[in-house]
Amino acid sequence: MKIDDNFYMKLAIDEAWKYQLLTYPNPAVGCVIVKDGKLLAIEAHKEAGMPHAEINALKAAYLKVNPNSVVKTKSSSSDIHEFFLKNHNDFFNDCDIYVTLEPCNHIGKTPSCANLLKELKPKRVIISVKDPNKTAAGGLETLKNANIDVSVGILEEEGLNLLLPFISWQNKSCIFFKMAQTLNGSIDGKISGNRALAYVHTLRDKIDLLVIGGNSVRVDKPTLDARYIAGRAPDVFIYSKNKIFDNNIPLFRIPNRNVIISDDLFKLLDYKFVMIEGVYTLLDKLKERIDFLILIVNSKIKNGQNALNDIDINFEILHENYIGEDKIMFLKRK
Amino acid sequence: MKIDDNFYMKLAIDEAWKYQLLTYPNPAVGCVIVKDGKLLAIEAHKEAGMPHAEINALKAAYLKVNPNSVVKTKSSSSDIHEFFLKNHNDFFNDCDIYVTLEPCNHIGKTPSCANLLKELKPKRVIISVKDPNKTAAGGLETLKNANIDVSVGILEEEGLNLLLPFISWQNKSCIFFKMAQTLNGSIDGKISGNRALAYVHTLRDKIDLLVIGGNSVRVDKPTLDARYIAGRAPDVFIYSKNKIFDNNIPLFRIPNRNVIISDDLFKLLDYKFVMIEGVYTLLDKLKERIDFLILIVNSKIKNGQNALNDIDINFEILHENYIGEDKIMFLKRK
Repeated sequence: MKIDDNFYMKLAIDEAWKYQLLTYPNPAVGCVIVKDGKLLAIEAHKEAGMPHAEINALKAAYLKVNPNSVVKTKSSSSDIHEFFLKNHNDFFNDCDIYVTLEPCNHIGKTPSCANLLKELKPKRVIISVKDPNKTAAGGLETLKNANIDVSVGILEEEGLNLLLPFISWQNKSCIFFKMAQTLNGSIDGKISGNRALAYVHTLRDKIDLLVIGGNSVRVDKPTLDARYIAGRAPDVFIYSKNKIFDNNIPLFRIPNRNVIISDDLFKLLDYKFVMIEGVYTLLDKLKERIDFLILIVNSKIKNGQNALNDIDINFEILHENYIGEDKIMFLKRK
Repeated sequence: MKIDDNFYMKLAIDEAWKYQLLTYPNPAVGCVIVKDGKLLAIEAHKEAGMPHAEINALKAAYLKVNPNSVVKTKSSSSDIHEFFLKNHNDFFNDCDIYVTLEPCNHIGKTPSCANLLKELKPKRVIISVKDPNKTAAGGLETLKNANIDVSVGILEEEGLNLLLPFISWQNKSCIFFKMAQTLNGSIDGKISGNRALAYVHTLRDKIDLLVIGGNSVRVDKPTLDARYIAGRAPDVFIYSKNKIFDNNIPLFRIPNRNVIISDDLFKLLDYKFVMIEGVYTLLDKLKERIDFLILIVNSKIKNGQNALNDIDINFEILHENYIGEDKIMFLKRK
């Protein structure tokens, strides 16, 4: 196997996928640091407001060589920035820094990564994708103007796949479908393991709106909250022509939750980050509206209902993660 | 992400899985070399008679630093061994060598890896699994006696999963089931892409016996050869109570092929490496007999027959590879 720029960029991309969607409204970004040929850090941005991927990687790389450095005690992005501006001692001069996305050039919740890198003067910065976000872009120019060797477009297709949710919620609404099944497509009863269920609750905590079919509400009476992670219950959109529901169903009993009952999908466009939870029939109805599908697959073959209908959809696998006994597949329609 | 022994061993294990089953009758083995912190090689054993994983990795690591060395022109295991015995110049003294399986200690088709490593005196040898094969074992002792620092048991569970087919065909017959489906479990019509089909033909070229249900033979009239890779057509076992078949079916027309028509599964134990090709119904019948399942999944959702019956099987995912638009899942019954 070739150990080259593509190899290290792939490590950065895979690390970023672990936090895909959880960084909302920020993009999922990964960063790898190689110092004089030694792999020192594989890190990612984990959550909005937390340090960017580059900052996490700079800290990890520095600590790998200086395990007792005081930077160990710094967790906020500003503190880590400040530490390195004062104490880098040219540590990064022989480093190759791989980032899946052009380092940000604007000062948001954290200082600009491009400006920090400019001061640290790494040997090379290797970027997969130029930032499509006008506000944050310009990092490339900042680095080039500081005479840092910059390469752009390494594993660009994989880098763009990683950015797909971010680009969606930047441009318009990001609407994705979530479905759980067994290996053979069975959807009956409890399918997913507990860690996969906690993952779904983590997603519910992040999204602006949860869409569910009227029939599911009537039959399954779900609460649709994020109790497994003690998170925020999202607003709910019940997709139904028939507007009459039993108000005692638990989902109506969540304080501060808006519930919309409607069959007008245009209303979804008022929200930035929307998850639809359902099975094959709803997927087939809404397939033209979604940006991607999250398919949670439990590794068993089981008897049960399998709603095949007349569905015919081709997908590209963007990525797969493993959570306990389940796989999380990110699929894009072809 | 922690960059430690587990990280490097995982790279070795993943590389070895790319050649899983193709190394028959040898085990799938991967090897990673890190010189003074620099990742130099990620290699694997690719086919019986070809160099072992360690030899491929030693060569790749040396060439990464000395790209014009004459070792570039050496391809046989003996030639590479000989080159390094004479010309190592202590290159490997500051190397950590990660191997998924204890280096072999016996001289088979190629010289012993443990004896070569003993001469090269690497800083450390890190091993996932001790060799269960008595003939080849002893490498650990050889290395220790040469005062090389050896660690054993790194990612042992993953290392054992990688060895599962090898351990099966060492102890008895290795019998695996191969099935193709779409994401939703549909099995109608042409499912897999061309690269996945070529992969199946590569497996057919390796196995000793192909098992197929009588009904499949009658309905689909398959040839069951390895024409996509110009490979050897395996012997065929038609699993059927009814022994009468149309002799004009192409599978009977392959020269030098034995065809057994029987419902006595004990006959399978006369063969070392057996692939059963079928769908859910046959899987359910034979699930107690198989060592693992290869599930080839095409990334589409499609209408079609879905043979659910009363199947209830729990699996552990051993590994997944991607081949074109298909996934190759290696599944073990739990």
